[in-house]
Amino acid sequence: MADHFGEFTPPARVLLGPGPSMVHPRVLRAMSSRLLGHLDPAFLRLMDEVQDMLRDVFRTRNRFTIAVSGTGSAGMEAALVNVIEPGDRVIVGVNGVFGARMAAIVERCGGSLIRLEAPWGRIVDADAIAQALARSSPVKAVALVQAETSTGAHQPLEEVGLLCRRHSALFIVDAVTSLGGMPVEVDSWGIDACYSGTQKCLSCPPGLAPLTLSDRAMEAMRRRTAPCQSWYLDLALVADYWAQSKRSYHHTAPISMLYALREGLRLVLEEGLPARFERHRLNSSALMAGLGALGLTPFAEEGHRLTTLHCVTLPAHVQDAPVRAELLQEFGIEIGGGLGVLQGKAWRIGLMGESSTRANVLSLLGALDKIFLRHQWITRPGTALQAASRVYFEHGQQIPA
Amino acid sequence: MADHFGEFTPPARVLLGPGPSMVHPRVLRAMSSRLLGHLDPAFLRLMDEVQDMLRDVFRTRNRFTIAVSGTGSAGMEAALVNVIEPGDRVIVGVNGVFGARMAAIVERCGGSLIRLEAPWGRIVDADAIAQALARSSPVKAVALVQAETSTGAHQPLEEVGLLCRRHSALFIVDAVTSLGGMPVEVDSWGIDACYSGTQKCLSCPPGLAPLTLSDRAMEAMRRRTAPCQSWYLDLALVADYWAQSKRSYHHTAPISMLYALREGLRLVLEEGLPARFERHRLNSSALMAGLGALGLTPFAEEGHRLTTLHCVTLPAHVQDAPVRAELLQEFGIEIGGGLGVLQGKAWRIGLMGESSTRANVLSLLGALDKIFLRHQWITRPGTALQAASRVYFEHGQQIPA
Repeated sequence: MADHFGEFTPPARVLLGPGPSMVHPRVLRAMSSRLLGHLDPAFLRLMDEVQDMLRDVFRTRNRFTIAVSGTGSAGMEAALVNVIEPGDRVIVGVNGVFGARMAAIVERCGGSLIRLEAPWGRIVDADAIAQALARSSPVKAVALVQAETSTGAHQPLEEVGLLCRRHSALFIVDAVTSLGGMPVEVDSWGIDACYSGTQKCLSCPPGLAPLTLSDRAMEAMRRRTAPCQSWYLDLALVADYWAQSKRSYHHTAPISMLYALREGLRLVLEEGLPARFERHRLNSSALMAGLGALGLTPFAEEGHRLTTLHCVTLPAHVQDAPVRAELLQEFGIEIGGGLGVLQGKAWRIGLMGESSTRANVLSLLGALDKIFLRHQWITRPGTALQAASRVYFEHGQQIPA
Repeated sequence: MADHFGEFTPPARVLLGPGPSMVHPRVLRAMSSRLLGHLDPAFLRLMDEVQDMLRDVFRTRNRFTIAVSGTGSAGMEAALVNVIEPGDRVIVGVNGVFGARMAAIVERCGGSLIRLEAPWGRIVDADAIAQALARSSPVKAVALVQAETSTGAHQPLEEVGLLCRRHSALFIVDAVTSLGGMPVEVDSWGIDACYSGTQKCLSCPPGLAPLTLSDRAMEAMRRRTAPCQSWYLDLALVADYWAQSKRSYHHTAPISMLYALREGLRLVLEEGLPARFERHRLNSSALMAGLGALGLTPFAEEGHRLTTLHCVTLPAHVQDAPVRAELLQEFGIEIGGGLGVLQGKAWRIGLMGESSTRANVLSLLGALDKIFLRHQWITRPGTALQAASRVYFEHGQQIPA
């Protein structure tokens, strides 16, 4: 027998990494509610409410709008393996880790991958997608990452949605790091499959992947000649559980996580999407101004940067791991390191959902200020805070009192 | 925008279905702890502790002993798709819904399925497995459900473990409804892959699948010529996150669920496995005595019945759905209906983990007593309670005061 472990009390952390983000006390309280069976009428009502609210957040009327019982990557896999059959041509934009992950999944499920590379930090060009669509017709699907968590790049989608319609291709979008923090317009942008994760801008614990499929995507699923490779993520089976008219058992839904998601969605809708997006924009501007004053530079190309996840490259003299360790140990602040080729060379700072507050921006900049001074990487204290507060001040001036 | 929904307060339920089972307040409290990042040193320590305790519960020294980020069915899929390659011969015992599910997954991942049927409610005969192993050599794996949740049958495993070793086949076992409630001896029974779910006898919310793999299973994974079809459930990648020496990011772990599992495992080990199994046995005997007095008969063959999940068939005059609705609405008690061919003809009553208490047994029997009297299916009140209390009384006599 293992030694008996004591009670676990997590240390206090300000979560400003690429996720999980901070969770509202109301969501934590919802998680601790007593359990219901997964076929209890009261729980089935909750599922309907979750679906309703997810439709609002995804800006869609898609009937099939659910939460997959897994983290964001399960949502990615579900979106891809259900519509793609062996031999189907699929264009995947690859400009970071998550585009590469999509490409890997397309290959694992036997799709014929058309890999459309763009340099990390840049967006995938709509013209390049148009050319690939014309060159490789017929294309079953185009898959893009709206918010590339590894680079901070913000991929525009609207034009690609039109291209996909014109070429009768399905449009699959990764909105893991954007949903609930930046505009995601599933219906008006012509997106056929869109998935996210709960632990980013929805500010719930990780463990569920919101997912919505258009009727065109559902039709592609229905027309498959063989069932998809995954039983667990087979959305044709999952749909029969979420559908009001059926409720057929597939797997036991993660009850407590769905309690959390319901409460998280309530918080999102109470704030309202426009106000929420504006909050993310403002805190993002202030953070970037402060980081700029410390000599950190945004990695993603200008005009295409996320306001939820900030990837900044470090000057050569700034050490990655030691600073992140100091932030965590001394200040209880978590930020993320660089992924893949950016490992050791960049930080990824999330201001998502509950984490996107003025207090967090100022705490982080104040802490970095102190650490940078101690290492003599800057000479004047308060530079970063000053730059950030100028943004908040100017914003205040623009708003009618 | 959807109408704004109010706060959700789940009605009080006594959960005596096939899962989720009741959750201890300590586990609920753990779920509401503030979040940590999935690479936070404090969280990585928690993962190590979860692994340690899972090894104790699985009775194994397997290094690879983790919790898959999905429900029990994700554990099933992970166990199968990682070791089975296209063309591999796999013997699957099918004597209920979950054996059939294993068979379906083997087919989806391209395995050559050898379906060994047994009538529902009966166990799969070791001789039949021996013959199939001899006839179809080489066989990559034998897969069995220890606790068939659809029938209540308890599959013996030890002899099959020996057969598998003799034929160099991997032994894959579904312990979803047994782990933590009945003996599961991974090492001494020669099991190579064993998975469970958190919402049964471990009495945590649904959402994680404990899984352990022997070195032989790990070796089979390592020797694959192509990666497994699932990226999300690719255990070679998942292993690199759980391994102390690596901690490579794969997907964001479901933090709060792992808090819950840690606390649930602490409760299991505080009680001790032998005491826990004995508790399940006693309450099971009392329940079955009471149900017998009401004219319900155990579905699984004698000598091979679970003490965690009880499948009983209904006399022709007893109506299924109305009684379950009365139990739920009038008494707040959930039991499960029959699955598949048993739909409408049987009930599945779980006494798992925190749900396995004398109070719950007596509450359920008292409620059934009242309902059966009202419908005039029995004439004498208290029959079921009397039968159950006799079991408790006799048990009390055997124990030294």
